[in-house]
Amino acid sequence: MWKTTTHLVNGVLCGERPALSRAITLLESSRTDHVEQAELLLDAVQQASKQQPFTVGICGPPGAGYKYLWIISLAEVCTKMPMSYLLPMLRSSRRKSTFLERLGTQLTSKGNHISVVAVDPSSSFSGGALLGDRCRMDNLSKDPLAFIRSCPTRGVLGGVARYTQSIVQLCGVSSNFVFVESVGIGQSEIEASHTVDLLVLLLSPAGGDELQGSKKGIVESADLIVINKADGPLEKHAKRTAMDYKAALRFTRKRSPYWDPVVLLCSSLKGEGGVEEVWTRCEEFREKATMNGELSRRRKAQGEYWMMKELERCLSEALKKDPNIIKLANRLKEEVGRGERSARNAGRCLAGLFHTTEQPQE
Amino acid sequence: MWKTTTHLVNGVLCGERPALSRAITLLESSRTDHVEQAELLLDAVQQASKQQPFTVGICGPPGAGYKYLWIISLAEVCTKMPMSYLLPMLRSSRRKSTFLERLGTQLTSKGNHISVVAVDPSSSFSGGALLGDRCRMDNLSKDPLAFIRSCPTRGVLGGVARYTQSIVQLCGVSSNFVFVESVGIGQSEIEASHTVDLLVLLLSPAGGDELQGSKKGIVESADLIVINKADGPLEKHAKRTAMDYKAALRFTRKRSPYWDPVVLLCSSLKGEGGVEEVWTRCEEFREKATMNGELSRRRKAQGEYWMMKELERCLSEALKKDPNIIKLANRLKEEVGRGERSARNAGRCLAGLFHTTEQPQE
Repeated sequence: MWKTTTHLVNGVLCGERPALSRAITLLESSRTDHVEQAELLLDAVQQASKQQPFTVGICGPPGAGYKYLWIISLAEVCTKMPMSYLLPMLRSSRRKSTFLERLGTQLTSKGNHISVVAVDPSSSFSGGALLGDRCRMDNLSKDPLAFIRSCPTRGVLGGVARYTQSIVQLCGVSSNFVFVESVGIGQSEIEASHTVDLLVLLLSPAGGDELQGSKKGIVESADLIVINKADGPLEKHAKRTAMDYKAALRFTRKRSPYWDPVVLLCSSLKGEGGVEEVWTRCEEFREKATMNGELSRRRKAQGEYWMMKELERCLSEALKKDPNIIKLANRLKEEVGRGERSARNAGRCLAGLFHTTEQPQE
Repeated sequence: MWKTTTHLVNGVLCGERPALSRAITLLESSRTDHVEQAELLLDAVQQASKQQPFTVGICGPPGAGYKYLWIISLAEVCTKMPMSYLLPMLRSSRRKSTFLERLGTQLTSKGNHISVVAVDPSSSFSGGALLGDRCRMDNLSKDPLAFIRSCPTRGVLGGVARYTQSIVQLCGVSSNFVFVESVGIGQSEIEASHTVDLLVLLLSPAGGDELQGSKKGIVESADLIVINKADGPLEKHAKRTAMDYKAALRFTRKRSPYWDPVVLLCSSLKGEGGVEEVWTRCEEFREKATMNGELSRRRKAQGEYWMMKELERCLSEALKKDPNIIKLANRLKEEVGRGERSARNAGRCLAGLFHTTEQPQE
């Protein structure tokens, strides 16, 4: 149906879901002709679309998420396990999804179009279809105003998938808000902060060793820290955790001079109150950051970041195919194998083959 | 005292600790002249040393390790926290260190020289000195036959530090056994498997969500899986966990056709029995893998892996300084910022400036 890129571009611009889904699949493909098509598509969409959606990242160290990782890997390992057994396990194991489901439903009930891009630690296993769309956010996935897409990290655990930024861009054409949900610890929050306008760090109350999230990098990237499940027996822990983070924030370098990161408590038992306050703060950030130019500064820096990332990736692909590299690498690896040269020295020798030329005048 | 590289090389070859420490510090330095010196040193040591030590990686998902990560980051954040407060917390929070302390003490008591390279998730904070040497393995650090060195990952969480492989190589000159201890989940085990001869995965008994480790990649990289703390109330859980992993192993691709990964239980309450059995299996692997060529095959593949890693790293450093790249990048990032071009397309444009030349005949 969507045979040509032009068709796809038009479909994406009109907010047609099948077109958007197809376009994302095209982006994720590694076939050479697909890569070219994807680039044409991205550029066309970027030039035609006027709308800049507000993008929010929902990150957090895996707590319940770990169970989920384990289920995924179990599924990867024992491919014989029936889906009927897996799906309920998945459903019960996702903290960030529950939060997003509530926030998303609130937003669509007010007439907003939203997209959720779920960065998915599953890898090879059926390209993320396992968690896809259906099993994570029950109500939201049936909502005509919400588009949910999972986006596999292809084996790289704890990282924003290679094409997340492009997918966010495509989803943004027909959405007012795009959420990037990222499972993982450490690197993924920092990568996510290069993708979204605002980063929310979602944490469980500290239960013994659960204060994992408080790594410097994470605290520094977050604009909003939300302690979830602040009710019942965990309320005390949640308050304690919130205080710990507030204390930690006083000692960290601020990400923006115009915004002081906020620590909030959120409870699913106390109605929708918590989620609403989180969103109020998100909107507050958006307003301030638009006014003082922080938002456009961030977006510009992000464009540059992804440009350099893509450059690195292209080079790392190219060097695996380059005949000059292959020829020398074959000789060097023998020398390394015989212990005549260190791997480090060999790597630097190879790098010496690379040169740049000036961009030809157009 | 160790002013020139020749002095350092001799010192390392004679197994002198101050020289080894200085040499590692040199390796870790990023100053241009140090980088050159480090390469000369590595190559000289590699050519002069006849000994190939047996290297063992001890990996595992952070369980107690998380607490430790948190303490580190707390220390990074609140630099005012007194060390007297931190050290006891650190001491109590390390599972893998306890295991290594017991194993290491056993080995040195038989007259073996050992080295422990502890890959350290701390980053900028005083270059890893926080966990250094003293606070982790109390007895081992006083043992004249043991050399312990922590090796900061410099901000990359869950990864083997950039120079781990070279450090292992240097330590190996004067040791019979080199252990690489890696805190982290996911990527780090896989990276560690590119550094060591044999990979041991150390796990806690499954306590609810603690079965984190069972990701496909990890199970596939491990040669030996050890379930720790198999005693008291956790014994049942440990046995269950062991069974789960045994089941999972049946479905994974084997790392080597000559070795079936083994799942073992280990308890600190039941004397040293568990650790001894682990080591017996390690020795068994070593014997078999030496006989059938698996060991030399692995080492050769590892050399190639690190050569390519170093190439990628050199390139990624070079492109930040290259005038042609900088010139075009400045133009492209404006276009990306104005929404006229996607970051992905810009990255590919930049990659187009790179060319390789043939290696000149020597």
